[in-house]
Amino acid sequence: MAHEQALTQLETLLGDRLRRSDAERAAHGQNEAHFPDALPDAVAYPKTTEEVAAIMRIAHAEAMPVTAYGTGTSLEGHHLPVQGGLTLDLSLMNRILAVHDADMDVVVQPGVTRTQLNDELRATGLYFPIDPGADASLGGMAATRASGTMAVRYGTMRENVLALEAVLADGRVIRTGSRARKSSSGYDLTHLLIGSEGTLGIITELTLKLHGQPESIVAATCRFPTVEDAVNCVITTIQTGIPMARIELVNATMVRGFNRASNAGMPEEPHLFLEFSGSETAVEEQSAMFEEIAADFDAQDFKRATRMEERNALWAMRHNGHHASKALYPGKRILATDVCVPISQLAEAVTAAEGKARELGLEPVIVGHVGDGNFHTGIGFNREDPAELAMIETFSAHLAETALRLGGTVSGEHGIGLGKRKYMEAEHGPALVPMRAIKAAMDPKGILNPGKLLP
Amino acid sequence: MAHEQALTQLETLLGDRLRRSDAERAAHGQNEAHFPDALPDAVAYPKTTEEVAAIMRIAHAEAMPVTAYGTGTSLEGHHLPVQGGLTLDLSLMNRILAVHDADMDVVVQPGVTRTQLNDELRATGLYFPIDPGADASLGGMAATRASGTMAVRYGTMRENVLALEAVLADGRVIRTGSRARKSSSGYDLTHLLIGSEGTLGIITELTLKLHGQPESIVAATCRFPTVEDAVNCVITTIQTGIPMARIELVNATMVRGFNRASNAGMPEEPHLFLEFSGSETAVEEQSAMFEEIAADFDAQDFKRATRMEERNALWAMRHNGHHASKALYPGKRILATDVCVPISQLAEAVTAAEGKARELGLEPVIVGHVGDGNFHTGIGFNREDPAELAMIETFSAHLAETALRLGGTVSGEHGIGLGKRKYMEAEHGPALVPMRAIKAAMDPKGILNPGKLLP
Repeated sequence: MAHEQALTQLETLLGDRLRRSDAERAAHGQNEAHFPDALPDAVAYPKTTEEVAAIMRIAHAEAMPVTAYGTGTSLEGHHLPVQGGLTLDLSLMNRILAVHDADMDVVVQPGVTRTQLNDELRATGLYFPIDPGADASLGGMAATRASGTMAVRYGTMRENVLALEAVLADGRVIRTGSRARKSSSGYDLTHLLIGSEGTLGIITELTLKLHGQPESIVAATCRFPTVEDAVNCVITTIQTGIPMARIELVNATMVRGFNRASNAGMPEEPHLFLEFSGSETAVEEQSAMFEEIAADFDAQDFKRATRMEERNALWAMRHNGHHASKALYPGKRILATDVCVPISQLAEAVTAAEGKARELGLEPVIVGHVGDGNFHTGIGFNREDPAELAMIETFSAHLAETALRLGGTVSGEHGIGLGKRKYMEAEHGPALVPMRAIKAAMDPKGILNPGKLLP
Repeated sequence: MAHEQALTQLETLLGDRLRRSDAERAAHGQNEAHFPDALPDAVAYPKTTEEVAAIMRIAHAEAMPVTAYGTGTSLEGHHLPVQGGLTLDLSLMNRILAVHDADMDVVVQPGVTRTQLNDELRATGLYFPIDPGADASLGGMAATRASGTMAVRYGTMRENVLALEAVLADGRVIRTGSRARKSSSGYDLTHLLIGSEGTLGIITELTLKLHGQPESIVAATCRFPTVEDAVNCVITTIQTGIPMARIELVNATMVRGFNRASNAGMPEEPHLFLEFSGSETAVEEQSAMFEEIAADFDAQDFKRATRMEERNALWAMRHNGHHASKALYPGKRILATDVCVPISQLAEAVTAAEGKARELGLEPVIVGHVGDGNFHTGIGFNREDPAELAMIETFSAHLAETALRLGGTVSGEHGIGLGKRKYMEAEHGPALVPMRAIKAAMDPKGILNPGKLLP
């Protein structure tokens, strides 16, 4: 068996928190997307930074690949140990270490999930707004530079991580950043680790910015004759400067999925799902301004949800989009693409996605965080059918090219992982040279999540 | 003469835009702070990215140091070519390349200054709010991760640069980021270059986020019995969540400087200088809330400045603080320290600064962007007097230690440059190892601004 010597040392270190059963390996080798399963040789469950450091020292000495694992919700195969070795499951590192309410920050271990954190924070009047839908771990969210529905107002993980602790490839423990709100001291290793997908270090602690729970929150929906009308309404709304808390596009196909999966009983037309937050007067002002703009784009059925239960039901339905898509494609997996463009190019990008899908005979789900210029196209496929795999490949490549042609990026929030390495050259060109140099400098043996991010 | 071969090649490339006169060299070897002058062998004035790339190819081949120069307003000696070689003066690269008002971004060359940019933007209804006081170049501001009075509302350069073009040590031209508002594609080279102080690459183009000019702006001042009262008022204001546009501390000594330098006629007591912005109702709401908080801390003389001329005069006076300090210390230079702490620690940090200054027999100017936990202590000194140099060294070291002890950073916005390299080990410890590895990977010959940032 590969890496036998390293694994024996790890067993001594971790006892029964090193698992080598087929069931454990299989559970950590699956994925939601279209990638073949890839199993680790073993799964380690560290509880402390010191244990992660000891694990990395062993892995480094034995040149064993190490792949970090949060909740396994990646859509780009980040957590798949394609070169075997060790999966580092961080789910036992799930303690909230300190809440500094006066400074509006919190220190957490990487296995804490976002709903766990917000449950803990409820009494403080503060919350952590970044919400990618899945109840992901905060370490995984930082590692993939995640965002989601609230990014239009609060930014992404990029804007909401103040400081990190990380274990490097050789087991060295570093701290980056501080609890000060700003700093001009040294290279920004915090942002280098955010989005590095476990290829430069293992995040073992995060200091996150918190935000005040808004005094008033109103969710709303309205429907539009066409996706283009909805998108153009979004563009005008953002350009007008209305500080939207959420503004999400849902096309007619997605609404059909909601109706099937959760009996939503909605008219099967394109919708925007919205949220306004702030003081009561601010919320009134914002929603009135929005309604006026929406009317110019022939919006109808502006419905408000003010009670928390109604709002939660609305966003639960939206977050369930990936699963609701499966109701449209029984027995199939869902490709969930992810591109982001400057907002002025959003209508063209969405139209191009729809056009290409129709050309391929597909009826795609389109949903997205359109206030940021970010949207997803969902297409059902059979992972066992080479023709269908080729078809989603063609579609994805077209969308990536379109995003780059319009001045955008091949991933707004899902990351590169395995699936998008092939577009890295087109997006970054010569900038891949320093990226590779940094990877080689920080992980000379190439043991941290090998086979991901860099082509 | 050193680097003769390289300089001859540069003369062929640039003609009279390579300057070797004593006057040019002296003008680029001065500094505002306490560092000895350091002269380059020559000064180059490139006009295009291609010229910067050609210069770097020559410098790289001949192992000649290259130090980028914006407007020379650094307070930490960033622009001093302490190992000689070439100063790259970017002032001729001062074109605004594209204003995308629909996307609220702008593409500029690095020599564009912030007032030049905002003058150009006036008609669009958009502006670039980052305001470090000096009319610095935007390339220099990015390279030092600058911020200033508006950071409490809009963030720093870290939050407001979307994309960069840079020339690496070997002359390779890279682009980082894109005009999309977010991305999960690849290592965040944009943030690695921001704050890298010209040691990893030369920034040759910046894409910056713009913001809507607020509908209404009101500036205000009020005075407090003690600095502690003023600071505690700031802490409560920030914790209450009032979205301050600016909130600046000015101690009694600074007010005396304003009175001497510009006949301000202000009571010589601690003040806060404030700005509220937003819709008219929001501004009213915010300033009323602030006045209520301030009253709890015995504030008096709450004075509003609504007309643009009054507001501009107020901020011009504040920005002139460094020069007004000189009126208090005739014939001397001013040490302007710069630390940043979590806001809950601000009162303790300011008190420690005052205490240490009094212990040394000094009466310091204290000003700062206190909404971020960032403040400056100004002390006059004679650069020719070793005892006074030792004294400011003692004071600075105490303040740096205090900031780190309180969970902060040795520089909130001025950067490391020459002056703060000695504190890098204390602040970053083992994180210096990857910082050095990255520097070595990206600039193996050590030609980019040698002697800065890393100890």
